[in-house]
Amino acid sequence: MTLEVLPVEGMPEIGAGTDLGAAIIEATTERGPELRDRDVLVVTQKIVSKAEDAMVDVDPDDHVSHKPIVERESVRILRRRGDLIISETKHGFVCANAGIDLSNVVRGRAALLPDDPDRSARRIRDQILGRLGVEVGVVVSDTFGRPWRRGVTDVAIGCAGIAAVVDLRGTTDALGRELMVTEVCVVDEIAAAADLVMGKASGIPVAVVRGLAAAWFRTGSVADEVIRSPAEDLFR
Amino acid sequence: MTLEVLPVEGMPEIGAGTDLGAAIIEATTERGPELRDRDVLVVTQKIVSKAEDAMVDVDPDDHVSHKPIVERESVRILRRRGDLIISETKHGFVCANAGIDLSNVVRGRAALLPDDPDRSARRIRDQILGRLGVEVGVVVSDTFGRPWRRGVTDVAIGCAGIAAVVDLRGTTDALGRELMVTEVCVVDEIAAAADLVMGKASGIPVAVVRGLAAAWFRTGSVADEVIRSPAEDLFR
Repeated sequence: MTLEVLPVEGMPEIGAGTDLGAAIIEATTERGPELRDRDVLVVTQKIVSKAEDAMVDVDPDDHVSHKPIVERESVRILRRRGDLIISETKHGFVCANAGIDLSNVVRGRAALLPDDPDRSARRIRDQILGRLGVEVGVVVSDTFGRPWRRGVTDVAIGCAGIAAVVDLRGTTDALGRELMVTEVCVVDEIAAAADLVMGKASGIPVAVVRGLAAAWFRTGSVADEVIRSPAEDLFR
Repeated sequence: MTLEVLPVEGMPEIGAGTDLGAAIIEATTERGPELRDRDVLVVTQKIVSKAEDAMVDVDPDDHVSHKPIVERESVRILRRRGDLIISETKHGFVCANAGIDLSNVVRGRAALLPDDPDRSARRIRDQILGRLGVEVGVVVSDTFGRPWRRGVTDVAIGCAGIAAVVDLRGTTDALGRELMVTEVCVVDEIAAAADLVMGKASGIPVAVVRGLAAAWFRTGSVADEVIRSPAEDLFR
């Protein structure tokens, strides 16, 4: 029942057109960890966006030059304060600056969110299945703030091969009572666990989470399972 | 650099007055994992509240009997919908039903949040240091929902011996650029990682997270580091 989180070291610098699945296969084959069925690969949004060339030009000397881009990438603005915009992206994510990221990117360029992060995850999963015959789950992670609590944490913006939300409704607790709060967002917990080994500046953009419950491995999608519709949401 | 998350099995049923530190020492000594310096023990709120007798009576046949208790335990109500109240507790946590929990509790009783979860964590840490001479971090975890995203995740409501928020401001990323988003709430990520092995119904209320960065081990407090003041908060 032990869970392990293993960094994937030695990933190459990723640019437009890099075959990300191939790069992960090469790094894990050469340096480990050797991928196994039911491993979950957590891949940061940054390298997915770079590989998919979801990048735009920004003026590196103008600290608000990304603002028109944020507005363009948003379908709804929730709050503004100073340079900060909290908005909803076309995917349905609510986050700061529409998820646009200037760190770990070449000066003068900013990384947008991938067009369809579930599809990005699926591609990597299919490639590993096709080339290695190993059935992994894949989570694309990003770093989001949240209301009420300080500090950022990593969450999932895409997934494949692993359930995003596990529904424990109807199961009973250790005392035989029916559980009340029971839909657990396991992909966010997986992204958070992976971030503990990735660090923020150490250049580890991929990690393997090993030892998750077998029942959680199935078709999954952040877009369908995690995003709360505005009608259900008390804070939008 | 591998991170491990190890369940602590065989914890006894916890009741009012149970010496929680002693119970953890006994379970880990008898069945493992043997505690080491810089392990972080994650302990669920539920058993902390039970041990501290932070419990109240509720009418088990009246599904809204907990509502007056929620109001009493709240300093501010943010939203109401049906039976659900989103409120701010005296600690500063914003969560559903003031964190009051009916699951895994004897019928007719509900568990409140501990009075001071940082103190609860400190007590367990001090006891392990005193009896075993081992310097661990301790996180008290609870299961919270959040706006915009479906599913609950575990977060930290108290900690000791481990920083709650790690400040990476001023460090540079792999390309030498100064990082922009840099305060990481590592205790929430640790609580999330631990939940992946605890499950919701399997009766594992304690886990050990092993392999965290040495620099993160220092005096920590969720109350001081994680709770965002209303003045800083865009959603209160």
